[in-house]
Amino acid sequence: MHADRKWGPAALRRALQVYVLTDRASARGRLEVDLVAAALAGGATAVQLRDKERPARELHALGRALADLCAARGALFVVNDRLDVALACGADGVHLGQDDLPAGAARAVAGPALVIGVSAATPDEAAAAADAGADYLGVGSVFATRTKADAGAPIGPEGLSRVARSTGLPVVAIGGLRPENAGLALSAGAAGVAAISAVISATDVAAECARLALSVRRALVQGPDPA
Amino acid sequence: MHADRKWGPAALRRALQVYVLTDRASARGRLEVDLVAAALAGGATAVQLRDKERPARELHALGRALADLCAARGALFVVNDRLDVALACGADGVHLGQDDLPAGAARAVAGPALVIGVSAATPDEAAAAADAGADYLGVGSVFATRTKADAGAPIGPEGLSRVARSTGLPVVAIGGLRPENAGLALSAGAAGVAAISAVISATDVAAECARLALSVRRALVQGPDPA
Repeated sequence: MHADRKWGPAALRRALQVYVLTDRASARGRLEVDLVAAALAGGATAVQLRDKERPARELHALGRALADLCAARGALFVVNDRLDVALACGADGVHLGQDDLPAGAARAVAGPALVIGVSAATPDEAAAAADAGADYLGVGSVFATRTKADAGAPIGPEGLSRVARSTGLPVVAIGGLRPENAGLALSAGAAGVAAISAVISATDVAAECARLALSVRRALVQGPDPA
Repeated sequence: MHADRKWGPAALRRALQVYVLTDRASARGRLEVDLVAAALAGGATAVQLRDKERPARELHALGRALADLCAARGALFVVNDRLDVALACGADGVHLGQDDLPAGAARAVAGPALVIGVSAATPDEAAAAADAGADYLGVGSVFATRTKADAGAPIGPEGLSRVARSTGLPVVAIGGLRPENAGLALSAGAAGVAAISAVISATDVAAECARLALSVRRALVQGPDPA
């Protein structure tokens, strides 16, 4: 099914491997478009524009720039929360938290082609998201993190594994992911890892993203890192 | 043109006559769905859900309730800023400020049927909105207001008249509008008046909205009030 979609199941699963989120605070005044370009150079396979403060007009302009960058590198580009901005700037997808639009309502507006990701911390949330037409899940917080103040208590690799085993949707692990623990997430069943501050706050974003990408690829080939 | 639209030009112009915006602060803890029902009972012909703070999931639920209420009374229902919420909750339209999605981008996403309103304070902004496919303009602030902190200096009935004379789009006057000055706005060329605090903060919302509606209808029939 969905033979007409740009991001079929296999391509989507691959795109979730190294999933980088923008974060204005972690950017520390540097241009996000430059940071995303660096992350793509470092091997990011997906980029999510996440900004709860910018007005939609700015978000739309930035989203258009990031959509072009990602398309040129074959990376998945997703906008957090704002389905309208995602559609207007030509993003590949939207990512919806539990306080954002219900996935079913978003699917009804967006049609079948848009990739819809949903944040899920439990098997119940995962099942609801799948029923509503989600394409992938963001599961966490796996480890403690300071980037998302509203992230709740970490669910650990065990919680991640519980959700991943409960669903047929590909899962990207989020929350405190770094090169050193990416293997744990993958062996718990994640298709990939999402990083905010670990990549975007780095002084050398490309190098740090490459470290994360290497760790993910190693774990996919060999099983988890000994660390 | 737009023969397939629910809100053709004549129906839209009529719907702009008594245009009530929700405002959580002015609601002072009362349920907005009750206040909107009261405003409709008082003769509101259009309702705008304006809330910059609620998460999209809450906005969507409230929007669905308000869309049903408005449809039952034949009133126009518009969501501020969030085109995605407007589409998902079955609103008739979206209202876009100068910091929101560009009207052209919104039109491309929404298609021809959705009513698109745009805030314009000058003839240049009005012309840009018309070129981008807007259906009506919200013009102000006409008078001083404390509801919108970002509203800028009042343009007065003269500024309203300049914008209204410059455009073929119907204009709803906004900012400090009350029953006492609605006639001034209509004689300056507005098709109707928008009110936030003047209606929603009233102790008796239905009565206050009826006062505004009476003032608007009087001015439309007789010209401006002597006051």
